[in-house]
Amino acid sequence: MNILLKSVTLNGKPTDIHIEGNCINRIVPTEPGNVANQVSTIIDCREKAAIPGFVNMHTHAAMTLFRGFGDDMPLMRWLEKKIWPNEAKLTYEDVYWGAKLACVEMLRSGTTTFFDMYHQLDATAQAVEEMGLRAVLSEACFDHFKPELAERRKKDIMQRFNADSPYSDRIRYALGPHAIYTVSGELLRWTADFAKEHDVFIHTHLAETESEVKQCVERFGTTPVRYLHRLGVLSPRLVLAHVLYIDGEEIRILADSGVKVVHNPASNMKLGSGYQFKYTAMNEAGIPIAIGTDGCSSSNNLDMVEAMKLASLLGKSWHKDPEVMTCHEVFNAATQAGADMLDIPAGRIEEGCLADICLVDLNIPAFTPNHNFISNLVFSANGSCIDTVICDGRIVMRDKKVEGEDEIMEKAASAAYDLIKRDNKR
Amino acid sequence: MNILLKSVTLNGKPTDIHIEGNCINRIVPTEPGNVANQVSTIIDCREKAAIPGFVNMHTHAAMTLFRGFGDDMPLMRWLEKKIWPNEAKLTYEDVYWGAKLACVEMLRSGTTTFFDMYHQLDATAQAVEEMGLRAVLSEACFDHFKPELAERRKKDIMQRFNADSPYSDRIRYALGPHAIYTVSGELLRWTADFAKEHDVFIHTHLAETESEVKQCVERFGTTPVRYLHRLGVLSPRLVLAHVLYIDGEEIRILADSGVKVVHNPASNMKLGSGYQFKYTAMNEAGIPIAIGTDGCSSSNNLDMVEAMKLASLLGKSWHKDPEVMTCHEVFNAATQAGADMLDIPAGRIEEGCLADICLVDLNIPAFTPNHNFISNLVFSANGSCIDTVICDGRIVMRDKKVEGEDEIMEKAASAAYDLIKRDNKR
Repeated sequence: MNILLKSVTLNGKPTDIHIEGNCINRIVPTEPGNVANQVSTIIDCREKAAIPGFVNMHTHAAMTLFRGFGDDMPLMRWLEKKIWPNEAKLTYEDVYWGAKLACVEMLRSGTTTFFDMYHQLDATAQAVEEMGLRAVLSEACFDHFKPELAERRKKDIMQRFNADSPYSDRIRYALGPHAIYTVSGELLRWTADFAKEHDVFIHTHLAETESEVKQCVERFGTTPVRYLHRLGVLSPRLVLAHVLYIDGEEIRILADSGVKVVHNPASNMKLGSGYQFKYTAMNEAGIPIAIGTDGCSSSNNLDMVEAMKLASLLGKSWHKDPEVMTCHEVFNAATQAGADMLDIPAGRIEEGCLADICLVDLNIPAFTPNHNFISNLVFSANGSCIDTVICDGRIVMRDKKVEGEDEIMEKAASAAYDLIKRDNKR
Repeated sequence: MNILLKSVTLNGKPTDIHIEGNCINRIVPTEPGNVANQVSTIIDCREKAAIPGFVNMHTHAAMTLFRGFGDDMPLMRWLEKKIWPNEAKLTYEDVYWGAKLACVEMLRSGTTTFFDMYHQLDATAQAVEEMGLRAVLSEACFDHFKPELAERRKKDIMQRFNADSPYSDRIRYALGPHAIYTVSGELLRWTADFAKEHDVFIHTHLAETESEVKQCVERFGTTPVRYLHRLGVLSPRLVLAHVLYIDGEEIRILADSGVKVVHNPASNMKLGSGYQFKYTAMNEAGIPIAIGTDGCSSSNNLDMVEAMKLASLLGKSWHKDPEVMTCHEVFNAATQAGADMLDIPAGRIEEGCLADICLVDLNIPAFTPNHNFISNLVFSANGSCIDTVICDGRIVMRDKKVEGEDEIMEKAASAAYDLIKRDNKR
């Protein structure tokens, strides 16, 4: 399928973007003589701006089911009373509908690629496959420091990576050891070796709370980054979510090891984990930094536009410096930086890149006046400004509606209510 | 005009809300036998929830013209290079279109009442009158410590309050001394006396930045709250915006004086003013606390749904306590608390109150599933969830569209661009 985005605003100028197959083929200024040969779909993009689809670098998609289920609660009480007992009951169907809902929500707010960690990976994969997004999926992996569980996890992982994937190449796998307090050093080390051998990414949570750091020091005699360094787990394949509590030397260690970091401002704030994400120091050290929403039970949405604003505002406020984390920096972190981390030629609108493009509705107050488009996008708009989404060269949302979204919302809501009820009947 | 909101979700239950004139007349559970006599308009509200219209307690409406015009800059450079030179050129027309745009934006995100401080008050009043909102408007007042300017300001104020208002009673006046660093103690004292005599509110900025406090101590020998206390300006008529830098004794002074406080999280964060709004301590001391967006040049929108989320998240993160500033508390601060501060019988959906009501579209991912409506509204949704707005018993937005919004956006954008150009030609 070929698509022509006619007269779309790109970097402030009317532009024609030609999409052929799943790639951006040609980008030219809009001019009267422009010819549109052999184009199957022409989209009139006056009053629309083109941006790359967002890359949500840390989420747990199917946790949409737990949106608003246990807020304003401390982390451990919330996990133990609300989340873990219900997660233990999740079926393939539950995760499938939760992930479908997440896909609807992500598309509606302009996300085309996400990096996931959750249970029932195949259910999420099926949802993503059907919905047309791109995702790197990791099965959440725990051994709770039990050798027999570690062995079972290794087998699961080997089985998955040795089998042929039934999915398109929009879907890739990664490894998802949950955290240093739920996964043994032995399994972490094995995971790192396996990732190296198979050249895949590792997705984990690190240095999210003060108590994690305290426990790490008590248990392993050192801080989280130093602990992973000692285990030999740090590498350019490692993507760390949160990373709130680190010192200057740890920043150097991460930079020297090529480790990538994902900032999740909404979740860090809402759970009271902390605010001092050391963007400036990490950025200056050369650590690649992307943005994630985290799961809907702690964030409580998957809106990357909001995540950009939160990241910038939080950075400015605790640094007490309005020049920190500019709109252009967080926009880059929410698009190109994430795609680069995952080695996906997207996150930018350039000839030869994947056609993962959003059209932004400029005819709303958020873009009025439009002195500075990126500022308006980051600071003034929210995800509802996204009108149309193209992923992998296919139109996956048009006129702010995703095909089948009403049924998906209904089914996902039923799955969520049934899940909680199953709990109460115990 | 009578309106029946049929089968609207109120506190989780299907409800019929009868509006007569500008008041909520009757609230009854939806039942098959319900009779709708003499109703001119029936709105089918299945899949909609009713909430009170938001009360934005601190803004500068017409600054929509400066949205995105100078971001990621330090406060003083931004004011001196970007804002003040352009504000000096504002015409009545400019402010009128800026305020009309602000009204469109506020309605689209569910605000029915706002407390404003800006230049060219009558232009804003005309805009509000036409758009159907409710506002308490204060003319921004500066004397820059010059006695002759102070005398001129007093005359302006007396003139306004002695003349009959040409506007409906949706519009009221207040006094708007800008700040302690732009208004002399003498004029502040006069303002307080005038406010007492005429029983009107005073709207000012206080303790917004560390440098304001430092300058205050240098100039007046004490901190901002103590300075106002010494001047005799503190009273239940005083509404203070920001109030980031105060100590425990100042909190007691404010509480004892009945002073009201407005939290503006977006602006405080974006300008790097600070993050430590002492919600818990002020709330425990009994100080009424409402929420504002501040103006669009620093916030950069007028979305009270976003402001609620920011307030809660910021509070939780710097207190490092997820139980602080719950969704219910910030929802109350964004509705009832603001209306109470302004002595307007709104901000709640109760029989006998003003019919200032928003209908929330529940058929979107933000409310799916809907385990907890207020949590979803605060943490998951944004202003785009508002479908219909009724203010003073009149439908002022329907199906997410405000009448005439396209023309208003066009005219406001032109006014903004022309204003900047006038600058460049100097």
